[in-house]
Amino acid sequence: MTKRKVLVTGFEPFGGEALNPSALILEQLAQPEAQSRLHQAGVVLVTQKLPVVRRSAIEQCIVAIEKYLPDMVIMLGQAGGRPAISFEKVAINLDDFRIEDNAGNQPVDEPVVTDGPAAYFTTMPVKAMVQAVNGVGVPAEISYSAGTFVCNHLFYGVMHYLAQFNRNLSRSEQSDLHIRADFVHVPFLPEQTMGDGHKPSLTLTQMTEGICAAIVCAAVTGDDIRSQGGNLH
Amino acid sequence: MTKRKVLVTGFEPFGGEALNPSALILEQLAQPEAQSRLHQAGVVLVTQKLPVVRRSAIEQCIVAIEKYLPDMVIMLGQAGGRPAISFEKVAINLDDFRIEDNAGNQPVDEPVVTDGPAAYFTTMPVKAMVQAVNGVGVPAEISYSAGTFVCNHLFYGVMHYLAQFNRNLSRSEQSDLHIRADFVHVPFLPEQTMGDGHKPSLTLTQMTEGICAAIVCAAVTGDDIRSQGGNLH
Amino acid sequence: MTKRKVLVTGFEPFGGEALNPSALILEQLAQPEAQSRLHQAGVVLVTQKLPVVRRSAIEQCIVAIEKYLPDMVIMLGQAGGRPAISFEKVAINLDDFRIEDNAGNQPVDEPVVTDGPAAYFTTMPVKAMVQAVNGVGVPAEISYSAGTFVCNHLFYGVMHYLAQFNRNLSRSEQSDLHIRADFVHVPFLPEQTMGDGHKPSLTLTQMTEGICAAIVCAAVTGDDIRSQGGNLH
Amino acid sequence: MTKRKVLVTGFEPFGGEALNPSALILEQLAQPEAQSRLHQAGVVLVTQKLPVVRRSAIEQCIVAIEKYLPDMVIMLGQAGGRPAISFEKVAINLDDFRIEDNAGNQPVDEPVVTDGPAAYFTTMPVKAMVQAVNGVGVPAEISYSAGTFVCNHLFYGVMHYLAQFNRNLSRSEQSDLHIRADFVHVPFLPEQTMGDGHKPSLTLTQMTEGICAAIVCAAVTGDDIRSQGGNLH
Repeated sequence: MTKRKVLVTGFEPFGGEALNPSALILEQLAQPEAQSRLHQAGVVLVTQKLPVVRRSAIEQCIVAIEKYLPDMVIMLGQAGGRPAISFEKVAINLDDFRIEDNAGNQPVDEPVVTDGPAAYFTTMPVKAMVQAVNGVGVPAEISYSAGTFVCNHLFYGVMHYLAQFNRNLSRSEQSDLHIRADFVHVPFLPEQTMGDGHKPSLTLTQMTEGICAAIVCAAVTGDDIRSQGGNLH
Repeated sequence: MTKRKVLVTGFEPFGGEALNPSALILEQLAQPEAQSRLHQAGVVLVTQKLPVVRRSAIEQCIVAIEKYLPDMVIMLGQAGGRPAISFEKVAINLDDFRIEDNAGNQPVDEPVVTDGPAAYFTTMPVKAMVQAVNGVGVPAEISYSAGTFVCNHLFYGVMHYLAQFNRNLSRSEQSDLHIRADFVHVPFLPEQTMGDGHKPSLTLTQMTEGICAAIVCAAVTGDDIRSQGGNLH
Repeated sequence: MTKRKVLVTGFEPFGGEALNPSALILEQLAQPEAQSRLHQAGVVLVTQKLPVVRRSAIEQCIVAIEKYLPDMVIMLGQAGGRPAISFEKVAINLDDFRIEDNAGNQPVDEPVVTDGPAAYFTTMPVKAMVQAVNGVGVPAEISYSAGTFVCNHLFYGVMHYLAQFNRNLSRSEQSDLHIRADFVHVPFLPEQTMGDGHKPSLTLTQMTEGICAAIVCAAVTGDDIRSQGGNLH
Repeated sequence: MTKRKVLVTGFEPFGGEALNPSALILEQLAQPEAQSRLHQAGVVLVTQKLPVVRRSAIEQCIVAIEKYLPDMVIMLGQAGGRPAISFEKVAINLDDFRIEDNAGNQPVDEPVVTDGPAAYFTTMPVKAMVQAVNGVGVPAEISYSAGTFVCNHLFYGVMHYLAQFNRNLSRSEQSDLHIRADFVHVPFLPEQTMGDGHKPSLTLTQMTEGICAAIVCAAVTGDDIRSQGGNLH
């Protein structure tokens, strides 16, 4: 069995929340139960917690990529209010922060990368991953917008870095060193939704099982499955 | 410790669904883990599955009440699309079935009980129960409408029966035999929400833990807590 | 053609809003266009603006009822966030104010009327009225909860007063003096929804046309139509 | 006053709907009231109705562009369920049709343009346009995903065509012949939302006033305004 090294990143809390489920998932993935499941699938996991800070989030993620040289990078972030784990299809070259990030940055309509292309599509098989997550009973879907805050910022920055990284590989290195990536938004945890007008949530167990299933799926899937999907608008 | 006998009812599937979480919760409550927790709180549990059928649902529930003579009746039902366990405050004397029940009945604007009062309020401490369920990390809220289908029908029918039952108790029987009741709506399970546009859901574990916490709370709570709540509209 | 006198009430602004669409509708109903339409249908309109204050709202409405002796009372209120004009089916005997009213009252789980019945159903043909409003192209629906704030408070208080008023009529007075009533919630106006995350709204023109259509319908309708409806939960 | 020629396109009905508000807006814009308002602002309006058909929608729009050589192209489409007029920020190179288009096409994860860039940003000042539309009392917002159906398909195809068109202009032609474009999604009309569970809607008058305000704003606005906005996710 081919070993697959997967880098999973998560964020610290932001926006007044006391916790960020994406960081808690990193801790759960390090527990024996998840480790055993990933190990059986030939997956070696490394994790990195990132600050909710423009520029720094990308820089620290790239440091981790260069340190670990993983086969895949799965970046996790919180999307409070969504009902399902959502696999982002596209990163756009736009920073337009509705609130300040954790260092007080609040750019208005600036590019993530000056003169970068307008967008990058994920290089991972998101339809297969959605199917795998739903297959273990955890709600999952594809999203066509990762917003314009630090999540999209990180996603775009990493895709831009990896596009150059992969392009610079020699032909003989392509099969070994090529790195794929996706950004995955997770809902609120139940404890984040108490009070008036409960928003949808998933438990940490559901999120961890879902992300495990997605990693295992991605480790053995090349091209995405062909199944009808998409959004009308 | 005073023993409290609690009758919990659940419904069979309806409306094209393959399962009904309210019936699955009954099975979970019979497992050793839930039993042990309820036992420690002095609660003796009995359960009854009910048909999603006008009249029969009430009749079979009353048979169970007269057989077990419980201290409390908690009727569970499915409210697909709601994000939290919701404790119903009021049952209204109205049958207006948007779809047929499982026996093909579809009454239009008929009373549940001819010449019955317009409504009954629950006789259980719903604010305390919501607080208890939220306290174990499970989303819960109060609802001011149980709809006009079989759930409200059962709720009203049982409250009407219990109003007479309790009124007929002699003074000496009041403290021992008085029976309280509430209807509790639970969301979809995750497996019921797969497909386009995920609706909110809770896991069976969350629902079972939530209902256990509510039962334990109700067993030791007389008057409801005084805390601000309500709906603006 | 039998003349029908209709009392329509509206509320002042509350909850931090600068306006209340229910009060603006009163002004629109007094304009020549609406007056002409109502006149053709044999409707004589009187209006009364009410404070968003516990007790006072009921008292001032009863003063207007006794002054005008209308055939029907249609009480309007704002339900921000709802997408359609909603005709309330039931008023419950419960004050549980999530926010203070405009005089600083914030009762917790108190009855509107001590020892009053749990609820009153509207005495107006709400399904026919919904059909009439939808028939002029304005979104309308039935609601089974008017909340637990001043809107429900007024609705319950007026239904309680009218139940006694109608009961005290002599047989010969019944056909002439009997008074029916309903509470009708209207959505936000567009100008109340600007900012992040637009909530649904209707224009003042839509609301006024809808309320006119409902009044004209009610003026000629005795028993409600029999059509399938209701809520599953 | 500089004359500005604006091409506005709309779609025929699709997805089982009997009408498409985007096509009805074209008719309204041709009425004297809208014409007068646009004329005063120096705007010359031309319109083109398009089929909800892959490829053909783009082709017929390009024919109209080459015929009229407008300063701006505003493409309208229906986004049923959204509460506000939404100005699309980005078009992506992805066709993934959840339903068949009106010619039976249902591509799965195909590019709009083979080897085209992943995305194009709108070249129009969407924040200024949103502010202008809200300023006339009509709900408006920016959207960061136009979906993956014919609306996004047209948007991407036209942006791709215009990118080449504008690049091929000589320096002296740039100020006269440069063409900007955006795609604008409009909500359902009220008559499309009747039945259970009303979705948000705007009236045809609201939509037409909103689109007029957006056109007039765009005619006099070069660079977009700098105001905080964006989506967290």
